Amino acid sequence: MQELSVRHLLGIKDITPQDIQLIFETADNFKDVLNRPIKKVPSLRDITIANVFFENSTRTRLSFELAEKRLSADVINFSSSGSSVKKGETLLDTVNNILAMKVDMIVMRHSSPGAPHFLSRHINANIVNAGDGTHEHPTQALLDSFSIREKYGEVAGKKVVIIGDILHSRVALSNIFALQKLGAEVMVCGPITLLPKYIKELGVKVELDVRKALQWCDVANVLRIQLERQQMKYFPSLREYTLYYGIDKKMLDSLDKEITLMHPGPINRGVELSSDAADSHHSIILNQVENGVAIRMAVLYLLASKTA
Amino acid sequence: MQELSVRHLLGIKDITPQDIQLIFETADNFKDVLNRPIKKVPSLRDITIANVFFENSTRTRLSFELAEKRLSADVINFSSSGSSVKKGETLLDTVNNILAMKVDMIVMRHSSPGAPHFLSRHINANIVNAGDGTHEHPTQALLDSFSIREKYGEVAGKKVVIIGDILHSRVALSNIFALQKLGAEVMVCGPITLLPKYIKELGVKVELDVRKALQWCDVANVLRIQLERQQMKYFPSLREYTLYYGIDKKMLDSLDKEITLMHPGPINRGVELSSDAADSHHSIILNQVENGVAIRMAVLYLLASKTA
Amino acid sequence: MQELSVRHLLGIKDITPQDIQLIFETADNFKDVLNRPIKKVPSLRDITIANVFFENSTRTRLSFELAEKRLSADVINFSSSGSSVKKGETLLDTVNNILAMKVDMIVMRHSSPGAPHFLSRHINANIVNAGDGTHEHPTQALLDSFSIREKYGEVAGKKVVIIGDILHSRVALSNIFALQKLGAEVMVCGPITLLPKYIKELGVKVELDVRKALQWCDVANVLRIQLERQQMKYFPSLREYTLYYGIDKKMLDSLDKEITLMHPGPINRGVELSSDAADSHHSIILNQVENGVAIRMAVLYLLASKTA
Repeated sequence: MQELSVRHLLGIKDITPQDIQLIFETADNFKDVLNRPIKKVPSLRDITIANVFFENSTRTRLSFELAEKRLSADVINFSSSGSSVKKGETLLDTVNNILAMKVDMIVMRHSSPGAPHFLSRHINANIVNAGDGTHEHPTQALLDSFSIREKYGEVAGKKVVIIGDILHSRVALSNIFALQKLGAEVMVCGPITLLPKYIKELGVKVELDVRKALQWCDVANVLRIQLERQQMKYFPSLREYTLYYGIDKKMLDSLDKEITLMHPGPINRGVELSSDAADSHHSIILNQVENGVAIRMAVLYLLASKTA
Repeated sequence: MQELSVRHLLGIKDITPQDIQLIFETADNFKDVLNRPIKKVPSLRDITIANVFFENSTRTRLSFELAEKRLSADVINFSSSGSSVKKGETLLDTVNNILAMKVDMIVMRHSSPGAPHFLSRHINANIVNAGDGTHEHPTQALLDSFSIREKYGEVAGKKVVIIGDILHSRVALSNIFALQKLGAEVMVCGPITLLPKYIKELGVKVELDVRKALQWCDVANVLRIQLERQQMKYFPSLREYTLYYGIDKKMLDSLDKEITLMHPGPINRGVELSSDAADSHHSIILNQVENGVAIRMAVLYLLASKTA
Repeated sequence: MQELSVRHLLGIKDITPQDIQLIFETADNFKDVLNRPIKKVPSLRDITIANVFFENSTRTRLSFELAEKRLSADVINFSSSGSSVKKGETLLDTVNNILAMKVDMIVMRHSSPGAPHFLSRHINANIVNAGDGTHEHPTQALLDSFSIREKYGEVAGKKVVIIGDILHSRVALSNIFALQKLGAEVMVCGPITLLPKYIKELGVKVELDVRKALQWCDVANVLRIQLERQQMKYFPSLREYTLYYGIDKKMLDSLDKEITLMHPGPINRGVELSSDAADSHHSIILNQVENGVAIRMAVLYLLASKTA
């Protein structure tokens, strides 16, 4: 049997194109399962997985929890609200305690970039990074590329633009790594204040004009404006952002070709995307959500066989 | 096999007396199950149910969660605290996302009247309304009538008074519909400021004097004063309310007949009900709670067979 | 088969040394189970357990929840945040409601000393006290003594000092009872303002100098300073506490014998314990966490057979 080259899924940067292919092929099988009347498989029956979320995330947590339950794992949820973390405990102590309770895998979201990498050097369980600050969000990037592959048959050669707040987005960074490893051409598009300074070193095209970006691409992955993250004064206001970067159906219809519209959710309707665009035939946004469960089942399943 | 006339349980208004009878007969069977040492049945083994609570409710959520687990369903809980809703996502997007994760049924509580009706026109899963604003709370009304039927053999012909804040109560409205469909005589009783203007159009008696109401009825269903909902200045103060509408055991004992006392909980002891009344032999309050699990099992079980 | 002398675990004060031995022997078996690849046993398959936490506690709740799931019980979680408690419901009403839903056992944490004792006189389910105010925390004391027994073969004859805020600690009181019942010699050590006035009546030694305490003992159980609990003005400041009572590795190495270091967690690193002490070979802190799950499995398993 094939297996992953890693024991943890910390970021797309650390895995190989072969790892991604293996995850996709495994997710193909699980997607078949999810479309059967009986959606459960006994694969992880004797595995206990802790979902350790130091940052709120309903959507990602639910998707992981469903994936875990479909795999018949035992699930415990830990969120920082009301936890020992507030009482001054360190990250390592918190996680060591969870591990001493004999947990096999940890799915972790944390506001500090590198938090799951730090842990992986100190503990024995398999770790899945469910988002570390503005750094990586590997399962999101995997489900995004998986959805492109589902639509077009392959990712290689496709032109993909990521539009929005690239600077504060872990989704953007993980997507860039995944798309490049799979042979896509990648462009980023957004206001100059929302692009990181090192962006050119990542080997992506940069485009400030959203209409030109849409004209160029096969796929537009539109990020949400992270309202809760930005407090910069010189940032464009929401109204300005929508005026210059908001995408509506008229804009999509005016292109001389068909493009595919993606969004990691949750959508701010009327800000980065109009409702008629989000609900148009261009959109594969709900397919992304559906594929998220299959991708996470695949990742958990493959990591479970990589014990220390 | 008999089946319900509806695919969703949105309100008592939308269902037939035959639907209610079918739910009661199914709940009879589940109540037998709940009194066995082994309380679990495999009926919904391959069904995933999402409890989506946009408003806090420990009591109703626990009752649904127990009903779901007794039916062997897979359960995921979603509450608005810490969710995408706070990030500006629309109700429809939130629920579509949960559905794209392949959830079969949704139990929803929402502060806006009509929220579950809106959803039922847009999505495929079966929806159970667990309370929508001041509108309906159908499973509460079903368990209330079921408890009356359990006590007296039937609901038809019984005189039932609903006492308290009728204006802000979804329990009152759903109870009126259920009792009328089952052939009971219905009265409402409370301060004039807490009765809706359209109350006479509902075909119920109105009584302002709580002693006369108690003297008339077979069953008094006492609502809690929704402290968290009222900010009207001309509302009677709590002390005034208790003085004029509070019910104690002495009052019950002074009647020249036996009546049955109900309350949907949580009780404000010393406000709408004294402790000696709540704990007296008149009270079937804890039977209501017990019947709630059986009724919810019946509703979920019957809806699960009504696929789109 | 042997059985416990009690139907509830309310405090160590109420149980016999034979009860403790029975719990330890049962926990030995469950600890073996937890070290197998398949960590689950079907023992409580038809039992529903409610975890009712009126005070936040991630660590204790997770440990109980894992214990319950390993025993195959059905688990429902109730926390006071967002519950009927906020709506003015009494403790007894809340718990009666949970019981009317046919729950078999209740694990309860409450801020009022005696709350679980009060309940045990009114309801039928088995109750496990998971901490009642500053009173008792019996499963913590059991896992502490179990960890000493694991290290030394037996508790009898060992010299154990409990260091820190004895006055506000339910862990201290439960530990004193458990250690005395098992034949250990017990000392408490801390600033005079953090020792209860009745401490001498408990039959323990009192020592104000932490170096002398460490020199005397075989085991030092270091409590955390309950920052969130203290608002006394004449309490030593944190800096003063650390200066006079903080323990570091140098201090441990300077003793002319080996001692064992325990802590119930969460640790305030740099306050009551330095990091090099907490992570030294003296420490059995993570063993305590691991033993907690086995002890709680044993308690739940033994109580489940004691029906009313």
